Amino acid sequence: MGRWEPNARGRLAEAALQLYSERGYEQTTVAEIAKQAGLTERTFFRHYADKREVLFSGAGDLQDLFVREVADAPEGTAPIEALVLGLDAVAGAFAGRRAHARTRQAVITANAELQERELIKLASMSAALARTLRGRGVAEPGATLAAEAGMAVFKVGFERWIEADEDQDMARLLREALAELKDVVAGGGQRAPGSPRTETGAQVARAQATEPR
Amino acid sequence: MGRWEPNARGRLAEAALQLYSERGYEQTTVAEIAKQAGLTERTFFRHYADKREVLFSGAGDLQDLFVREVADAPEGTAPIEALVLGLDAVAGAFAGRRAHARTRQAVITANAELQERELIKLASMSAALARTLRGRGVAEPGATLAAEAGMAVFKVGFERWIEADEDQDMARLLREALAELKDVVAGGGQRAPGSPRTETGAQVARAQATEPR
Repeated sequence: MGRWEPNARGRLAEAALQLYSERGYEQTTVAEIAKQAGLTERTFFRHYADKREVLFSGAGDLQDLFVREVADAPEGTAPIEALVLGLDAVAGAFAGRRAHARTRQAVITANAELQERELIKLASMSAALARTLRGRGVAEPGATLAAEAGMAVFKVGFERWIEADEDQDMARLLREALAELKDVVAGGGQRAPGSPRTETGAQVARAQATEPR
Repeated sequence: MGRWEPNARGRLAEAALQLYSERGYEQTTVAEIAKQAGLTERTFFRHYADKREVLFSGAGDLQDLFVREVADAPEGTAPIEALVLGLDAVAGAFAGRRAHARTRQAVITANAELQERELIKLASMSAALARTLRGRGVAEPGATLAAEAGMAVFKVGFERWIEADEDQDMARLLREALAELKDVVAGGGQRAPGSPRTETGAQVARAQATEPR
């Protein structure tokens, strides 16, 4: 292998994820990751500060994308609609990466330290979105509440996307999650035990979303 | 001082908070906290595992209270209304403790490790609320979304309560935050720069809430 190592960063990330998944995050060493990727430890450390960063380096890009879409929404766009534009872009960035996302999530769920890091990442994203909405002239506490709502939709929609039996359209799942959030916040969502099932706004939206276009 | 130490736990907590606030969390030792409270280190460790736990031991009680109120809401209560009952109880538990809550928050904001711990605490509370709502028959993802909405309302209302110039009714601030959340989630909250101010649902709710009864 020459000094030019094509896509070293991506190869290291894939090798790391595979080893974390097979052997466990704690049991895997940087030397093993480098070897698995056919690269040297030195190359690893040119791309990542440590083995944890491999799992979280994408989070910064994701946050930048989300924030940029919200910032660039047309003037006068309601905060929640600006967030929907951001969520659509995020869904686009995940397209074709469901297997990767599932494996990464399983690795994180299995390790308390990684779960904490994930919480911090999500909190940082929420704070960045709130800041962006304030920059668009949205007053507090509306900006923070809208950002928190957007993050709740992202978390729930993302979880449904990776948990589903088959690969579904993440953008659609995110919109369904938003419809559900609208419904529960407005006072819907309760079915008394044994009572006949009534259609909520979210169910109507889901039925519409799954109709052939 | 005899072997019976009246309110040792509370005295240790107050002493710790005072020292963290004056000298910084990292600079304060358990020996200093015990001395400030007029107690021994041995007594400290009978009540708290370490100096961090002093700041977070109340979180478990708060979560228990919040969860219990939601669980005990009358059958058929909408998820968001069950959460409002929980938020009212939480506000009651904070009554008369604003100075303490402000100082604690300032200590936490000044330290990255404590901020992380706080995020974990809030995530745990959200998960417990979602579990409780599922126990009431609320389907997913509605239960998780409602719990996340309730936590967003709690965070924003709590922050407004401790930041305000004077001691306001926390229950009222929480209801205002919920009204704002309903408004932004439903598509409100944007004022185009320079446009005339229009009343949103949240502003109407706030105006009503501040009217003399």
